[in-house]
Amino acid sequence: MEKIRIGIVGYGNIGRGVELAIARNEDMELKAVFTRRDPSSVKIHTEGAAVRRMDDMASMKDEIDVMVLCGGSATDLPVMGPEIAASFNTIDSFDTHARIPEYFGNVDKAAKEGGKISIISVGWDPGMFSLNRLYAESILPQGSTCTFWGKGVSQGHSDAIRRVKGVKNGIQYTVPIEAAVERVRSGSGPELTTREKHLRECYVVPEDGADLQAITKAIQTMPNYFDEYDTTVTFITEEELKEKHGKMPHGGFVIRSGETGEEGNRHIIEYSLKLDSNPEFTASVLICYARAAYRLAKAGQTGARTVFDIAPGLLSMKTPEELRAGLL
Amino acid sequence: MEKIRIGIVGYGNIGRGVELAIARNEDMELKAVFTRRDPSSVKIHTEGAAVRRMDDMASMKDEIDVMVLCGGSATDLPVMGPEIAASFNTIDSFDTHARIPEYFGNVDKAAKEGGKISIISVGWDPGMFSLNRLYAESILPQGSTCTFWGKGVSQGHSDAIRRVKGVKNGIQYTVPIEAAVERVRSGSGPELTTREKHLRECYVVPEDGADLQAITKAIQTMPNYFDEYDTTVTFITEEELKEKHGKMPHGGFVIRSGETGEEGNRHIIEYSLKLDSNPEFTASVLICYARAAYRLAKAGQTGARTVFDIAPGLLSMKTPEELRAGLL
Repeated sequence: MEKIRIGIVGYGNIGRGVELAIARNEDMELKAVFTRRDPSSVKIHTEGAAVRRMDDMASMKDEIDVMVLCGGSATDLPVMGPEIAASFNTIDSFDTHARIPEYFGNVDKAAKEGGKISIISVGWDPGMFSLNRLYAESILPQGSTCTFWGKGVSQGHSDAIRRVKGVKNGIQYTVPIEAAVERVRSGSGPELTTREKHLRECYVVPEDGADLQAITKAIQTMPNYFDEYDTTVTFITEEELKEKHGKMPHGGFVIRSGETGEEGNRHIIEYSLKLDSNPEFTASVLICYARAAYRLAKAGQTGARTVFDIAPGLLSMKTPEELRAGLL
Repeated sequence: MEKIRIGIVGYGNIGRGVELAIARNEDMELKAVFTRRDPSSVKIHTEGAAVRRMDDMASMKDEIDVMVLCGGSATDLPVMGPEIAASFNTIDSFDTHARIPEYFGNVDKAAKEGGKISIISVGWDPGMFSLNRLYAESILPQGSTCTFWGKGVSQGHSDAIRRVKGVKNGIQYTVPIEAAVERVRSGSGPELTTREKHLRECYVVPEDGADLQAITKAIQTMPNYFDEYDTTVTFITEEELKEKHGKMPHGGFVIRSGETGEEGNRHIIEYSLKLDSNPEFTASVLICYARAAYRLAKAGQTGARTVFDIAPGLLSMKTPEELRAGLL
């Protein structure tokens, strides 16, 4: 079998997850990892794959079918996305919801000019959760959709904690409030405030002699991040942090409640994820969309796409015949 | 707005559900219902829509964009599906899993020759459940998927009960066994037998003087339908049946448990439905796939498709721009 040749751009948590996911998909192989660091300092696990500098990409133009972009959405992808899309088929997990239309436009232009295909904002939210919002709303146009996240680690909120004065280290869990989930599941279509949907639990390692009350107050009143939530702050040691909070679990729920007919029959559609490792799961989604990008590129398609544009069958290793016979 | 003009073929539970679903989708209108019965005896609810004989279809060839075929899978669709696909774009809910490849082939040939598009096996299983099996397996190739149905009424099993000697009327509920669902959800990947996954609950109205023990035994030992399950038989009156068992609820779960990485991180993907009305929900799925068929036909595509081939964005009333800005 001819394998799909993957390149990874950026070797952080997601990049490593992509490498691990490739090893679990027999129709793919990792060709190279591109990094901003000194390549000799980056140890990857795949035999035979190269580690190269970011600016060495062009030299591998004919050896890579799809580049999986594993940079951050704040500053990396807005630049990197359109740039690389001009020369390679790409997949990314751009997740700044508000800037998706602008980002889509930039990538679309670059990919079309380069004759390449790019699937943006792939993962679980945006990604699988978006798909489920779309399917559920299309089936039940009259109704309401509610998304809950967690229990899981939010990188953005953990970073925000670590910027507070007196904080040495810390981690933040977003926790869906079970009573709110149950109210949505019951189909009563409740109007929920931000505070009613999620709790924020912070585990903080203080610096020696830090003012713990001041830290707690600074976190709980932080605008945009914590002030609209009920937030708990628990102080722990560096050892406890490593021991009990070293994993990156996550998950959540998309629940749509809607009605049909004249008598208002109610229906609940629920999609949920419970993930041991957020980056490994996200990487696994990226990799199956890389397969779709490969197939679309082979079919001569160009430009930007999102998960909404991708026929589900393109994600599978199986043939359309196998899918109809075995999974339909 | 130019509306999508829908025809309904067969006016049973699903056909009526499709009529109700059209009323809830403002970009659609019902043009005609085609029936085997005497059209003057069929009362529909949509003003301005026609009721015609099955063999009058050809006369409305230019007035209908998509025909929704609401016949049964056992005898109606295998004949009707390819026949109508030759002249109209069609949607159906063909659900005899084992015969899907053959049915697909016949419809594909007819639709291609007629220059039409047909989406087969649309609904929730096959349909939304199939999609979720596909997405989950593509993301987590190493793992196991388990589908549970219910609690809900099975028409096939209810019909089987009613054929038993001494039975005047009856209904059968398929009930997922909660302990089995929990074992699958826990991610332990259990091997479950048919008996461990579902119960079958039968509510039977006996004929006067019937042998109740004989009825119970006949049901519980019936091959293919009940012998592999724990089946309860409860005798009730015709009034009770009407009062307590007049609705057609259904639902179920598709749960995939799989692992990623080298340390075997576990992930659970779950999709569930809880439906007040099985036929109305199925009809709502059919209707949003009719929208996709309309768009594909406009784009000049022909032949048979399944839900696996349909890009999710095609199902929505919203434009791609609206979807990216609002749902991604």
